[in-house]
Amino acid sequence: AQIALEQGYEARREFDARYRVLLANTKQAVVFVSVQSGRVEDANEAAAALLGLNADALRSSSFAQHFMDRSNVELTESLMNATLAEEEGQVTLTATRTQATVIAHPVVFRAGGQRVLMCRLETKESKAATPDAAA
Amino acid sequence: AQIALEQGYEARREFDARYRVLLANTKQAVVFVSVQSGRVEDANEAAAALLGLNADALRSSSFAQHFMDRSNVELTESLMNATLAEEEGQVTLTATRTQATVIAHPVVFRAGGQRVLMCRLETKESKAATPDAAA
Repeated sequence: AQIALEQGYEARREFDARYRVLLANTKQAVVFVSVQSGRVEDANEAAAALLGLNADALRSSSFAQHFMDRSNVELTESLMNATLAEEEGQVTLTATRTQATVIAHPVVFRAGGQRVLMCRLETKESKAATPDAAA
Repeated sequence: AQIALEQGYEARREFDARYRVLLANTKQAVVFVSVQSGRVEDANEAAAALLGLNADALRSSSFAQHFMDRSNVELTESLMNATLAEEEGQVTLTATRTQATVIAHPVVFRAGGQRVLMCRLETKESKAATPDAAA
């Protein structure tokens, strides 16, 4: 069991490292939100900047508190509904701090026995300026 | 040890799941390349499309074979040198299949005892059209 344990530890560290490097170095704003609690499980600096705070403050906060439009339960429902859309679903929100219009593109998956939403965030302006995002 | 083993397995699966969802759903083209072998360890569809093939064919191929400019050793050296730049380093390449000018933005990190390069790839056109990328 000791060898298996060490192999598991190494493999975990490898995915952990790849995950962290990818999240930190993608230019896109990304937030992971627990479906059960509505809390932010992880987020990058790009997402924090878009919402007008820093990544440490964004992590483990309630995701809904950063938007004017919806309660915690309503926001999770809206995001879950958008994941069911045939085309790429999205939810349009207004950021509390910056007043910017923020478009969230959610995907749902299971990790560690929990459902998690990954949301790409874009401001309405940057979406219009990026040809890729309109496709 | 059994409980620790299971916890390690769950934690590994969690990072594995987050990593895969993030890589698949980011709109950016991303490739992970082994420093030692120059082989592609993982890549998303966006990267494969940019180089004119599919992601399965890109994975575990030699990264240099997709560009006209450099041998395997030269490409790894160029990417490693670019990671040392004070500002965000980049390497300009020409894709073999599409003839497109591809700009690679590399970051180096350690995972599972090996050095790995994560490269964001952009075509020259998409770079110019995205205000974020010029910052």
